[in-house]
Parts: sequence; structure tokens; C-alpha cells
Amino acid sequence: MKKSMQAAILKKAKQIEVQEVARPQVENEEVLIRVKAVGVCGSDAHFYRDGRLAGWIVKEPLILGHECAGEIAEVGRSVEEFQVGDRVIIEPGVPCRRCEWCKRGEYNLCPDIRFMAVPGVDGAFAEYVSSEADFVYPLPDSVSYEEGALMEPLSVAIETIKSAKIELGDSVAILGAGPIGILCLQAARAAGATDIYITDVDENRLSYVTTKFNPTLAINAQKKDVVGEIKKITSGRGVDVILEAAGTIETFKVTPKIAKKGGMIVLVGIPPFREFPFQASQLFDQAVQLRTIFRYTNTFPTAIRLVDKGMVDLKSLITHRFSLDKTKEALELTMNREDGVIKAVVIP
Amino acid sequence: MKKSMQAAILKKAKQIEVQEVARPQVENEEVLIRVKAVGVCGSDAHFYRDGRLAGWIVKEPLILGHECAGEIAEVGRSVEEFQVGDRVIIEPGVPCRRCEWCKRGEYNLCPDIRFMAVPGVDGAFAEYVSSEADFVYPLPDSVSYEEGALMEPLSVAIETIKSAKIELGDSVAILGAGPIGILCLQAARAAGATDIYITDVDENRLSYVTTKFNPTLAINAQKKDVVGEIKKITSGRGVDVILEAAGTIETFKVTPKIAKKGGMIVLVGIPPFREFPFQASQLFDQAVQLRTIFRYTNTFPTAIRLVDKGMVDLKSLITHRFSLDKTKEALELTMNREDGVIKAVVIP
Amino acid sequence: MKKSMQAAILKKAKQIEVQEVARPQVENEEVLIRVKAVGVCGSDAHFYRDGRLAGWIVKEPLILGHECAGEIAEVGRSVEEFQVGDRVIIEPGVPCRRCEWCKRGEYNLCPDIRFMAVPGVDGAFAEYVSSEADFVYPLPDSVSYEEGALMEPLSVAIETIKSAKIELGDSVAILGAGPIGILCLQAARAAGATDIYITDVDENRLSYVTTKFNPTLAINAQKKDVVGEIKKITSGRGVDVILEAAGTIETFKVTPKIAKKGGMIVLVGIPPFREFPFQASQLFDQAVQLRTIFRYTNTFPTAIRLVDKGMVDLKSLITHRFSLDKTKEALELTMNREDGVIKAVVIP
Amino acid sequence: MKKSMQAAILKKAKQIEVQEVARPQVENEEVLIRVKAVGVCGSDAHFYRDGRLAGWIVKEPLILGHECAGEIAEVGRSVEEFQVGDRVIIEPGVPCRRCEWCKRGEYNLCPDIRFMAVPGVDGAFAEYVSSEADFVYPLPDSVSYEEGALMEPLSVAIETIKSAKIELGDSVAILGAGPIGILCLQAARAAGATDIYITDVDENRLSYVTTKFNPTLAINAQKKDVVGEIKKITSGRGVDVILEAAGTIETFKVTPKIAKKGGMIVLVGIPPFREFPFQASQLFDQAVQLRTIFRYTNTFPTAIRLVDKGMVDLKSLITHRFSLDKTKEALELTMNREDGVIKAVVIP
Repeated sequence: MKKSMQAAILKKAKQIEVQEVARPQVENEEVLIRVKAVGVCGSDAHFYRDGRLAGWIVKEPLILGHECAGEIAEVGRSVEEFQVGDRVIIEPGVPCRRCEWCKRGEYNLCPDIRFMAVPGVDGAFAEYVSSEADFVYPLPDSVSYEEGALMEPLSVAIETIKSAKIELGDSVAILGAGPIGILCLQAARAAGATDIYITDVDENRLSYVTTKFNPTLAINAQKKDVVGEIKKITSGRGVDVILEAAGTIETFKVTPKIAKKGGMIVLVGIPPFREFPFQASQLFDQAVQLRTIFRYTNTFPTAIRLVDKGMVDLKSLITHRFSLDKTKEALELTMNREDGVIKAVVIP
Repeated sequence: MKKSMQAAILKKAKQIEVQEVARPQVENEEVLIRVKAVGVCGSDAHFYRDGRLAGWIVKEPLILGHECAGEIAEVGRSVEEFQVGDRVIIEPGVPCRRCEWCKRGEYNLCPDIRFMAVPGVDGAFAEYVSSEADFVYPLPDSVSYEEGALMEPLSVAIETIKSAKIELGDSVAILGAGPIGILCLQAARAAGATDIYITDVDENRLSYVTTKFNPTLAINAQKKDVVGEIKKITSGRGVDVILEAAGTIETFKVTPKIAKKGGMIVLVGIPPFREFPFQASQLFDQAVQLRTIFRYTNTFPTAIRLVDKGMVDLKSLITHRFSLDKTKEALELTMNREDGVIKAVVIP
Repeated sequence: MKKSMQAAILKKAKQIEVQEVARPQVENEEVLIRVKAVGVCGSDAHFYRDGRLAGWIVKEPLILGHECAGEIAEVGRSVEEFQVGDRVIIEPGVPCRRCEWCKRGEYNLCPDIRFMAVPGVDGAFAEYVSSEADFVYPLPDSVSYEEGALMEPLSVAIETIKSAKIELGDSVAILGAGPIGILCLQAARAAGATDIYITDVDENRLSYVTTKFNPTLAINAQKKDVVGEIKKITSGRGVDVILEAAGTIETFKVTPKIAKKGGMIVLVGIPPFREFPFQASQLFDQAVQLRTIFRYTNTFPTAIRLVDKGMVDLKSLITHRFSLDKTKEALELTMNREDGVIKAVVIP
Repeated sequence: MKKSMQAAILKKAKQIEVQEVARPQVENEEVLIRVKAVGVCGSDAHFYRDGRLAGWIVKEPLILGHECAGEIAEVGRSVEEFQVGDRVIIEPGVPCRRCEWCKRGEYNLCPDIRFMAVPGVDGAFAEYVSSEADFVYPLPDSVSYEEGALMEPLSVAIETIKSAKIELGDSVAILGAGPIGILCLQAARAAGATDIYITDVDENRLSYVTTKFNPTLAINAQKKDVVGEIKKITSGRGVDVILEAAGTIETFKVTPKIAKKGGMIVLVGIPPFREFPFQASQLFDQAVQLRTIFRYTNTFPTAIRLVDKGMVDLKSLITHRFSLDKTKEALELTMNREDGVIKAVVIP
């Protein structure tokens, strides 16, 4: 195997170059993976557009991409659970295993986690990527590499649904019908939610979601009053669980207004604004709980089983495919939400 | 409306007579219900066979039947939420609303609960039955009275699944493929379990369950080694949640042997034997949790939504129908598990 | 017993008159209580000052006061658990017992709860008050009426600590050293918190709290940088649980900045401002949970046991006593936080 | 530093020899600890008496002792958090950090955990012991080495109290007043239990416990009827939480009989008998939950804080001290429960 590989390198904002770089080395407990499919995440598009995201700044060239499926190309000396040729997916964050959060099972909060495609750790828009073996999972034959790549955003949805403590018979409102919103819809139903409302401002997207994923009600927030519609369909009670997956100030404001008394609001993903637009009295009047989601823990095995059993449909999210050469186009498309894109995948 | 009604009265063990008795009166906060369908429960069959069950003894004539759907025939003066003619189902236990358990929402444990078809409170094998209005729920048009009657055993299954804290991706083993086992199977899947194993000793029942309810694996415990089969399919790890729904000493013994380390065992229904056959060391080695289920709280609205949305199939459980005159035959059939019975329903 | 009684009536903002009014009648399941001590709550002072609080407006004359201990003066016909002369305290909200929240044990959220001293339901600044018997609790001989009156704010603290899920060894920061803050401090310690930090802007109050209730650290937020101090004492990690008990915009802003990753913020009491001043990115970076507290459920028996066993000290909170005639002065003192008041009690 | 050390070696049942053996080497991420105090655990005494415990068999010479405090003697190359001379305690089990249990924070269930003084891993009845640095904790100056050694059994008690989900105001019955029972008593009180009952059959031990640790009630199970006494003091309701810490068939039988409806039974430590003596109907009638405890996770920092703050008293448990030469005598004393021993400590 040659020691170099092709990779799409982010040099600075809006500048991506595909070039030959050194192939990752494999330590004793690691495996090398021949990348077969990489999903394009909103965070990749943010890094591409701005050269930064939240507190992270791209100062050195960086390979983006952290939603990754592939084939085992090499195994470290201590690795027994994989063989060359195995079909796998990667959980892209490897924690320190030693801090108090790791020991409590909250390794997503590990201060020393190394997460792919965050400045300092290269990602998967490349021919190869390496990972510690215990953060790599076998991909069942029933599941394609493309679907495998989408296990990562599905993991975010699973973490969301578990944190929301959704139970049999709950009602759920999902604000935002992007990939995370759609995966939350599917994971909420798989967890027993019986009434699922989803909102967005893009009519095409709502039509697509309605056709493919069958929500109880899809509301176009530009044409209808979300609070009024949800009050009407819930006889004034509001919903048990609200999942904010749009990251806009308007959707944040809606959350406590549609919560049932004692309900749960879960905020998925980091919003672009600084101050919270909640009206305090609403939060108190409804006695809601509020949680934020930061990545996930122990979700990949669940994600794989849900897809393998047909309880979640990942195929229908994939609207566009690009070769590694066209990574820039994939990022542009995702950034601009053009051409009805829901999820773009890069196939190296 | 006449002041009397036909009812099937249990006089003593194995003696049921259908005769004319006084119709229940309706208090201010009560409704009268014209019974349309009543499921036959194993506990009804036990009372019929033995004249007793657990600590309860039938000393006075008793009307059995507590799985009941019907039509509102009369409303008390303070009742605003129902009108004559409404299609409804009944939650058969009305608690005191004042004790510490009621105030904590654990009203199933209320020491003063009045539960239908337990000595002292007449049940629903009759033309009419009364109930406090807030323990009566509207039945959607999409759901038949027969299905409505089965919301009560479905409630037991929902309570079981909630107590078991089943999460997305869990594996579940259900010991016993009777009505409760089948409903647990369906509720577990609705709650996100991806791998569901069910065992029984009746090949016909297992075939029926496999055809209708699609478990991951159905195991005939008379022909195969349940522990071995489950160890094999779980690569030696055992399952996350075990639901004991057969009430036999053999199935109890199996539970800790098939649990994953840290797993959960839930015991549904009262077994006929006195001492627990667990091997203590197994319970400790596996660090399992163990819970018992006693009826349910706040499950009826969930049950209705699950059936209304098609997430649980009650129709396929109903194998036999009897008129009120034939209540005795319905009880005999259930008691003897004859003719491939899964669930018998009495239609007054 | 005469049919009238003396009561302090709020006519409109800042206008209290003590006058003779009809004594409450006792229904079958109620008891009449001769009031012995009533605590003055911040909400009483708000109603007094403004004639309103949050969404409630005083349109009819209203008796304030909902922190009440007294002696049984009369028992309704169905009441068996009390006798005339019994020393008791009152839980001041009686819910409907029938709605979904009541049945789940979340009766604090009952939309039809009747809560004392909220417009529509008279309170306890009077010679007598009535209550349903199951919301009345025996007061142990070891506990004075004055302390008994303070079981109500202690209940708020207990609800807070339970909602915060405080565990053995947790660190807790309490923002605000008023009565609720002090009771949270004591309840947090009783629940196993080992490191308790408390802040306020009133040096006298902090001295008092330090002397009487022994926090790990008391911080004067006017003189020191709360965030810096807490980061220093926690080696930069932040605290497990933050309890906001001051209701100011400054303290709200502090909460996510001092939370440990994965920590819990609990907001006690309704703040006077409309929009939340949290910086969104902080809430996300720290992956915190956030809850609001609205009254309490099932806390009175716990409150009584904690005080009876000496695990919480209520005596040291009581700084001022007034006769019923001086209710206005008690409210003024509480409103203006004069004379080092922590808690004023009216003794009718 | 010399390369050998003195250690007390278990050769086979009842045969201990103190001899010179190789000193442990220190890997990169490890520290070497000069042992200052080691508590004698019941499991050490079992291994000594029988040469085996549960499924473990002593086939090779083994150093016992896993309750250990000492001084850092050497640090591995990658260790930054400790210096030679630091006073520390050891958490005696180091898990694999890679399996599903480790990643969930349930590292006590790790199948590949290396636990001191279990066949295959030497313990601390020796001059030196090594450990991975992140399972070593600084001992505050306020806490002696002897007390430090007892942080390990305190960890078992903390795990028990957390698993029991003890809340403010709970009542707790502890069956067995040995070291674990006494530590459970103290941890339960620290967690907010207000009513704590403890039973034993040894009058001297009960007197000691009553004097030093102030339970609500101490019951001599040989002289009094435990069930009757607890029913009496709880007005027939039973207790919220029962902790079985004696490991006898009689105490196991008692547990469901004294549980409140909906209560929690926690079994601490592995009993010597095979089949559970519970009466099934009692477990069901009371609708109890039941858990077993296997070691602990994330408890050491809590243990240290509780002792440092004076919320748990370890000193009063230590009744006997032995030199390393007298390890055999320490084990004999513990095994035979002679001379009023509660806890013996070996001081190398």
C-alpha cells in the first residue's frame, strides 16, 4: 500500500484543495480504514464558509468530514476484532478514557476528546482515515456504506431522544426538518412517540418529509402560526417534548409556548445567536425542563440495529452524491441548501 | 331505562349463573356504561376455577370481568366530558386519591383502590357497569369495542415496558407467549427494542406469534435450551431486559441466566409458587435489577394512542367470542387454554 | 365558637385592613384550623406592594398568607385522622385530584389547584383557616408553630433539591441568601452535598448565613467576582448544581458560567424580567440541564421529619414577629428587606 | 530503592507467609505506593479461610488486601498529577476502558477488570503496591492513612445508597451491623434519610453502633421480632429502603416483609446460599424493586469529601491494628468476629 493518499484539504475559508498527503499511520490499537462514503454535515459547511465554528478556528490545513463508513485496510498489532476487508463505520470522537466524565460514561464531555474534522484532528474527506479499534463498528451486510456514513447524524438523534426521555405515547414537536430534524422524527417514532409534529419554512422540504416519513402533522411556519396549530391539535395542552433542530431565534422562541406543563425542551445543535430569546415567565409557567445536546455516547450500536431492522430509513435522506474531487461542490450545496438537498455524501 | 340488568354471577368456584340483578346507580361524578365487549383475563379464570386468587376469596356473589368497552348510557350531574352514546373504555381501578401513593402518582399501590371484579366490587360480565368519569376514556372511531376491551391488558404491558426502562436498541427476552407476553412483545418493539426473543412451550402458539407479531426469534422451551439459544444469538452477552410473563418456576429460573451484566428482570403477574427459585449468585454475578409489576398507572391514554396509530395490533389477539350467556364457556376455555385460544371476549 | 373572625384583608396595593369577616365553613372532608403562626413570603409582599404578581391580579379583597401552622378547631364529618386541639401545619394548595397531572403525582401543575392567598382563595393572615384534611399534617411536639409555618418554604427547597437530583458528594452553588437560598443550603447539605457555595450582595446577610449555617464559602457578589471565585475553589471545573434563588438578571447570567460540564441549573422562583440573559453558547458548551421549580409535591412529610430530626434549622431564620394587627408592617418589612430581616412571622 | 519487598502471601487456605518478593514495577502511566494502611475485608477473610470465594479459586500464591492507603514512592513517566511523597488512596479495580460497560460508566461490570487481591492480581498486604495513576486519589491532610484505607468499604456503601436512590426524608432499614452496615447507616444519613433502623444478632455490636452512630432504632434480631418492631415504628407501612448487609438466609427473608409498598430492596454482598428465600407473593404484593450491588463506580472522590467534611466517621470503625507480620492474626480475628472486632487494619 502506498504511503500517501488523496485528500480534500481546507486551507482557509472557502478554499478547498484536493491533493496528495501522507496516509495516516496505524498504532497498535488502531485500524486503517479505506473511506467509502462520508456525509456532509452542517458543521463541515460552517467550517468551509467561515474558517471557524463556535470557538474553533482553522489555523492549519484541515481535512473535514466526520460521518464516515469504509473498509478495513490495515489492523494494528493488538487489534483482534477486525480483519482487512471488513465493512465498518467510525465513531469520530475518541476520548481520554481517564477523566471523570469518561469514567461516568459521559465521554462526549471529555475535555481531551479527539474529534475528527475539528482543528487539530483530520477528518474523512480522504482516501484513508485511522481510528482506535474500539470506536469502529461492523456494518451489517444489509446496510450500504452511504447509509453507514449517516449513522453519525442518527447518533445525534438517538442521543436527543434518549435525553428527552421519550416514552410510549408521548407527543413530540420537532422544529426544523433538516437531516437532524428528520432523524429525530424517525428516532422519536421508533421510541414510541405516537404524535409527531414537524415544522420548517421550506415547503418543498415539508412535502418531502410528509411523503417519506409520515409525521402526524407538518406545519409551514411561514404560512401558519405554529403555536396556534399545535395548541389546536393538542386541545390547548401543548406537547410533551419539543426538539429544537433549526437553530433560529424564531424557533427558540416557540419552544416554551408549545410545551405541555411539565414538558421537556431539548436543544440540538449550537445556535448562531448569543442571548436566549425565551420569555422567562413562560419557562416558569410551564415548569419545563430544558436540555442541550452535545454529540453522543454509546449510540452507534443502537443506530446500526435500528437501521438494520428497518426501524429508521437513512436511504431517503441522501439526495446528492459527489466524488472526492467535488468535495467543495458538496460543501457549497450543503451551505446554500440548494437543489432540494437534504443530505449530500462524498464517495472517495 | 329499566332498573335491572342481566349479569353473569360467580356464586362459588366453577358456578356461574346469568341472572337479572339491579343495575348500578350513577353518582354525581360517575357515568353508566352499556357494556359492548369484555375481555376474559387469566385472573377471571382463576377466580372461576378456585373461587379465590392470591389473598382474595369470593365469599359473596361476584360479577367478574374488568377488561371493558362500551357506550355511555347515563351521565352523573357533575360530568361534563361525556354524553350519552359516546364510545368509551374503562380503567377498572379507582383509587382513594388521598393517600401517599395516590399523591405520588403510584395509585396502583393505593391500599383503598376499588378494582373491578375483585371481591367487593362487581365487574363487567353484565349489561351495564358504572365508573367514575375520570377513569373512563373516549374510544376513537378507528378502534372497535373488542379492541377497546383489550386496552386493559395492553396497559399491563405498557406499565411493564415503562418499568423496564426499555430504550432504543435494547434487546428483550419475553418468557411466555400468552396475551401479556404478546402485548409486551408489541409494546417493547413500539418502545424501540430492536431484538426481541420470545419463548413458550406451546408450538402452535409460537407459530401464531411468529406469523402475526414477527419476533426476532421464537424459542420452544420444550424442544430447545432457552439459555443456550439466547447466549448463542447474543454472542454470550445475554439480553438487556427479561420479561417473565409465564409465571412458572422454570421460566423464573431462566431469568438471571440470560441477563446481560447490569440487565433488568421484570416479573409480570403473580406466580403460583411460594419461594423464588433464583440462584442468588447469578443475581449477584450479573448485577441485575429486578422489579415486579402490579397493574398500571396512567397507561390508558397511551394504550389508546398506540392502537389508534397502528403501533400495536390488538385484533390479532382475539381468537374467540362469546355471548353473555356463554360467559362460563369463555372462562372454561381460557382456564384450559383450549382450541388455540389467545384471548376470548364476551359480547353482552 | 363565633361565626366571624379577625382577618388582615388586602383591599388593593398597599392597603391592608384588619377587620371582622365570616369564619370559614368546614365541609365533610375538611378541618378548621385556629391559626398560630404564618410566615410572610416574598410573594405576599409582592401582592401587597403591587396588587398583582405574575399573571394574578387582586380584584377582590384577599387575605394573604400561605405559610401556616395552627391548632385543629373543628373537624368535618368524614375526618378521622384529626381531633380538636391537634397541632398541625397546612399544605396550602389543594389540587383537583382528577387531571392527568394529579394522576401522575405532579399535582403542583394541576390547572385547577386551589392555592391559598392567590386571588380567589383566601389565605391565613386571619384567626381561622380551613383545609381539606389530607393536606394537613400533624406537627411533632418538638417543633414550634413558628417553625411549623416555615415548613412551606422548606418544601420549596426540598422540591428544588429533589429536582436538582443532588447526590452524595455533589458541589452546589446557591445564588441568593434569602430564606429560600438558606433553606436550599440546608436541604442540599442534608441531601449529601459536601461543598456548598452561597452568594449575595448583602454583607450582613452573608455574615449571618456564615455564622448560622456554615457554607463552604460565602461570596459577596458586589465585592468579588463570583465566577472567578468559584472557578478558583473548584480548580476550574465548576460546580455540579447551581440553584438560582435571587431572581436577578446578574445571577441568571452567572449560572452557566459556573456550571461543571454536564451540570444542572435549577431556577427557583419567578424572575421579574422577560427575556433570559443566558449566553446560548455557554449553555451548549457546558451541556447543562436547566429546570424551573413551581411549588412542590409530597414534600411536607419530609420537611417535618428533617426539622424533627434536627437536620434542618428553621428557628434561626425567624428574625421578626408581628401580631395580626401588624400584618401591614410585616409585609412592609419583608418588601423593603429592612432591619436585617430574613423571615417575619405573624402570630394571630 | 531496593527491588524486593516484604509481603504476606496466601499459599493456600489458612496458610499465610510473610516473605521477600519482587517489588512491583511501574509502567508509564502508573505510580508505586508505599503502603501505610490496609483494611481487612470480609472477602480477604473468606479467601484466607477457604482458599476460594464465589467463583474465584486461589491456585497460585496471592497477596490479599484491597483497602489501601499509602505514600507515592515512584511515578511513571507519563504521570503528572502526583509527586513522590504524596499521601494517596487506591481504588483497587482497573477496568479495560474499552468495553460497552466501561463506555457506559458501569466499569464495575467490565469483564476484564483487574481487581486487587482477586486471584491473578496481587493486593496490598505488602510494603509496596502499584496502580494506574488515574485510580489513585490524593488523601487530604485531615484524613489519616487508616481512615484512607477505609474509603474502599465506604465506596461500597456509597454505591449502595446511590443505587437505592435514597432521597431526603426516606426511611431505611439496614440488616446487619458489620462494617458495611455501619457505613451504609452513615451514608444513608448523609444522603438525607431521616429514619434509620439497624438490626444485628450481636448485642455488643448493637450497643457500639447505638453509641457511636446514633440510629433511630437498633433491633437485636435474636431477642425481638424485626418485622413486628419495624411495622410498629412505621405504623404498619414498612420502610422505603431495605439494605441487606448481613448475607444470611434469615435477613433475606425479612426484606420484603418490612418494605413499604413500592419500596426498594438492595442486596449488598454475595450471600453464601444458593436459592433465594423470598416468598414470591410478598415481593409482588409490595411491588418492590430489588437490586444487587457489585463493587462501585466513581465513588472514591465522594468518599474522600464525605470524610473530609466530617459527614462520615471512619475512625470509630477501627477496633484493631496489626503489623504486616501479623496479617494472619488480622485475618483470623476478622474471620472469627472475635474481641468485638468491627474493622482490623494492617500497618506495614
